[in-house]
Amino acid sequence: MFDQITTQPSLDKDSFEARATKLRRELLECQFAMVETGYPVLIVVAGLDGAGKGVLVHRLNEWMDPRGIETNTFWDPSDEEEEHPFFWRFWRQLPDRGRIGIFLGSWYRRPIQLRVDEEINESSFETAAERIRVFERQLSDDGAVVIKLWLHVSEKTQRRQLEEKAPREEQNPRISDRPYELRGKYEPTLRASEELVRRTQTLQCPWHIIDGEERYSREIAAGEIILAALRQRLQQSAPPTPPPELPPPNDHLAAVPLHKSLKRDEYREKLEHYQARLQDLAWRAYREKRSLVALFEGWDAAGKGSAIRRVTGAIDPRLYKLVQIAAPSDEESAHHYLWRFWRRLQRDGRATLFDRSWYGRVLVERVEGFASPAEWQRAYAEINEMERELSDHGAIVAKFWLHISPEEQLARFRARELEPHKQYKITSEDWRNRDKWPAYEAAVNQMVSLTDMPNAPWYLIPGNDKRYARVRILKLLCRQLEEALG
Amino acid sequence: MFDQITTQPSLDKDSFEARATKLRRELLECQFAMVETGYPVLIVVAGLDGAGKGVLVHRLNEWMDPRGIETNTFWDPSDEEEEHPFFWRFWRQLPDRGRIGIFLGSWYRRPIQLRVDEEINESSFETAAERIRVFERQLSDDGAVVIKLWLHVSEKTQRRQLEEKAPREEQNPRISDRPYELRGKYEPTLRASEELVRRTQTLQCPWHIIDGEERYSREIAAGEIILAALRQRLQQSAPPTPPPELPPPNDHLAAVPLHKSLKRDEYREKLEHYQARLQDLAWRAYREKRSLVALFEGWDAAGKGSAIRRVTGAIDPRLYKLVQIAAPSDEESAHHYLWRFWRRLQRDGRATLFDRSWYGRVLVERVEGFASPAEWQRAYAEINEMERELSDHGAIVAKFWLHISPEEQLARFRARELEPHKQYKITSEDWRNRDKWPAYEAAVNQMVSLTDMPNAPWYLIPGNDKRYARVRILKLLCRQLEEALG
Repeated sequence: MFDQITTQPSLDKDSFEARATKLRRELLECQFAMVETGYPVLIVVAGLDGAGKGVLVHRLNEWMDPRGIETNTFWDPSDEEEEHPFFWRFWRQLPDRGRIGIFLGSWYRRPIQLRVDEEINESSFETAAERIRVFERQLSDDGAVVIKLWLHVSEKTQRRQLEEKAPREEQNPRISDRPYELRGKYEPTLRASEELVRRTQTLQCPWHIIDGEERYSREIAAGEIILAALRQRLQQSAPPTPPPELPPPNDHLAAVPLHKSLKRDEYREKLEHYQARLQDLAWRAYREKRSLVALFEGWDAAGKGSAIRRVTGAIDPRLYKLVQIAAPSDEESAHHYLWRFWRRLQRDGRATLFDRSWYGRVLVERVEGFASPAEWQRAYAEINEMERELSDHGAIVAKFWLHISPEEQLARFRARELEPHKQYKITSEDWRNRDKWPAYEAAVNQMVSLTDMPNAPWYLIPGNDKRYARVRILKLLCRQLEEALG
Repeated sequence: MFDQITTQPSLDKDSFEARATKLRRELLECQFAMVETGYPVLIVVAGLDGAGKGVLVHRLNEWMDPRGIETNTFWDPSDEEEEHPFFWRFWRQLPDRGRIGIFLGSWYRRPIQLRVDEEINESSFETAAERIRVFERQLSDDGAVVIKLWLHVSEKTQRRQLEEKAPREEQNPRISDRPYELRGKYEPTLRASEELVRRTQTLQCPWHIIDGEERYSREIAAGEIILAALRQRLQQSAPPTPPPELPPPNDHLAAVPLHKSLKRDEYREKLEHYQARLQDLAWRAYREKRSLVALFEGWDAAGKGSAIRRVTGAIDPRLYKLVQIAAPSDEESAHHYLWRFWRRLQRDGRATLFDRSWYGRVLVERVEGFASPAEWQRAYAEINEMERELSDHGAIVAKFWLHISPEEQLARFRARELEPHKQYKITSEDWRNRDKWPAYEAAVNQMVSLTDMPNAPWYLIPGNDKRYARVRILKLLCRQLEEALG
């Protein structure tokens, strides 16, 4: 594939300067216009070693306003990064809306390396490609411009670049310290790269292969590609995403056995029993470096807070973080809606407990119209993909919906209004939400239909009896941990 | 010292329950009131191993609303943490205003450990204590409530705690895996702890020593101390900080040789020369794991942006981050004003370039009244302390003020208004700032007087001639790097 790319006509210095001057002005204009539209731009600069990736990034920083650009280099992951799902280190470096992130190294490096070293087989290689397609599609669906540049050089040029003395004394030690490691690997690297480029070639996030033999012409080529991509996005008013047709959901909520209850004595005994088990399991998960991601959703006044307290009460505080999800901060609003959850994920071996979660996208944001139909409808797939990424990394994902009847909710609202130290817990918003019960009910049923997965199951918890609900949650959590920890 | 603490009278379960119920209600009330006042709360839970720190943290999470509490445990630092100044890992975990951060392990652990292992001498131990006092004072000056609890147990109790089989199967492996490591270290640990507690005992951030022998009474004692501290802060309207008297500054700006200039040919040659040197030096710094922290301040239209571009143009984009400081995000506003700079610091071996910086506190925030006199006046010391922390860790700190004359500024403003693609660079705010020239001049002179330090020098750059300024900055940066890299 790469050997069929069009060779760029060589450029002399004067022609380069002339074209660069014009290009620079146009790129700057587009950069400022992108700030206005508020879409982030990702530029992946990939390619063979010695193809001039670093030099190109320099040039892009020179041509555009470097104050709006963040260059991210991915060498060996830090231990914090190792102890998270693969894409976590890329999520944490995503540019804010209106800004440009240049990715040197990026998510392409590792799969190619593993393939060259024959550490992954055909099928794992395809899985890696699939996860890349998912990651890029999620960002692009959210409005990000994803520009992927691949710089190609011949084996001869690569050898010259890597072995010749650099014009300036010091250089990237990763290359200068180990030029011989690369020797003889040109062919396998090329084959793996071509394969991965082909597998991640999509209409939405296409690759641009650039002949990297000659500096001036490759820089102009890269600049023109970026310019064209920015202009294309600036001409679109919104990314075109036709909402898919969703199947009508089953009435999962109707099947929840709300009559279940527990007597006080039995409750005390079981609570003690499961809390002790959960404490042990949390330490076992720590030792086995498996993380727990548990999230709690439910009706207002369903007893979410007090149920969570029974869970945190069982786990050593060194081992968990409780994340309460309210309105996003402005930094969070400047990113893909999943970013704020990714950033809170704890390291392997720890538990992250979410009091409300990414399901807000298909619950409150859907019902209140904060998310467009296209946005919340594609969220089901995005959420499944994120949870798959978590569980593939080894995380244990558990999801709880605390269910109560409308009558029970009413009784609890009334009781809260009467108790002075619980009045803060009930607001006019709670009453407004209550009026939308049927809309929420439909949203919950659809959510369960579309996101109840073997790797990330939904547990619908009968909550009319608080004691029963608390014990039930602890029991299910223990069971899932036990099964996962083997 | 610790052996003179008052022994708590032992509590039976009923008395405990009675007092706990009342305490819990009062703590909750205070917690909610703190959310209103918007001060953060730090609770340091320190003490000997086996003194029940984890159990106490559990209890605090049970008594207060865990949704407003973040528990931070500090075991071995990650490699990202190792590659930053010591306090970076604590800065990144500071609670937002209105929230409570519990610190298990905290900044006390390492100095005590090093002292017990005889890896630091008396004088380094005192330096560590001084840095702790500074850190806590900075947070407290900003309104944070810093509550420090030390749990003391006798050697006998410690041995029993660590060696007896725990009631539940699994426990903190740091303790259960190595009980014998602690054997025989009780006395030296106690001595080092007493010493550090004594050295960090301040009026503003006092220690509370708690007899940890008995569970019920130590929990009540801790709860009462926290309650009293919260109440005390809630009764104060603002933390009392009388503004210090500042000496009148020298007129540093008048001494800047603004007539300096450079001819085009000489400029080209020198620019090329110093950029090549800087490129090499950046890679050398990377190899030696020394980070560069360079910041750029200056008058509007002084040429800051284009000068920075000559610096970034020289450094491999893999090695630097350019941080542009504008208005703080809401997450940043919810922290100490230095937090947003701490969080952007790159790892050892990389360069962090700040386009505007923490000096905004004593420049724009002072002149515009965004910071109170007490706030900006104490900022000089806070900034010196932060830069000291950076340079002690090995960072090379360089600070540039780009100076121009008022006449030159006027000429540049007018020229910008005439050029279509530079009009965005000039706003009515620039004209307003210009009217405040004398106020800014005084602020700059005072800043230089109070923060020009051997470990973090100010360079006042004559900027009337842009060519001279750019080369001068590159030259000074090269020189400082060369001296530091030895």
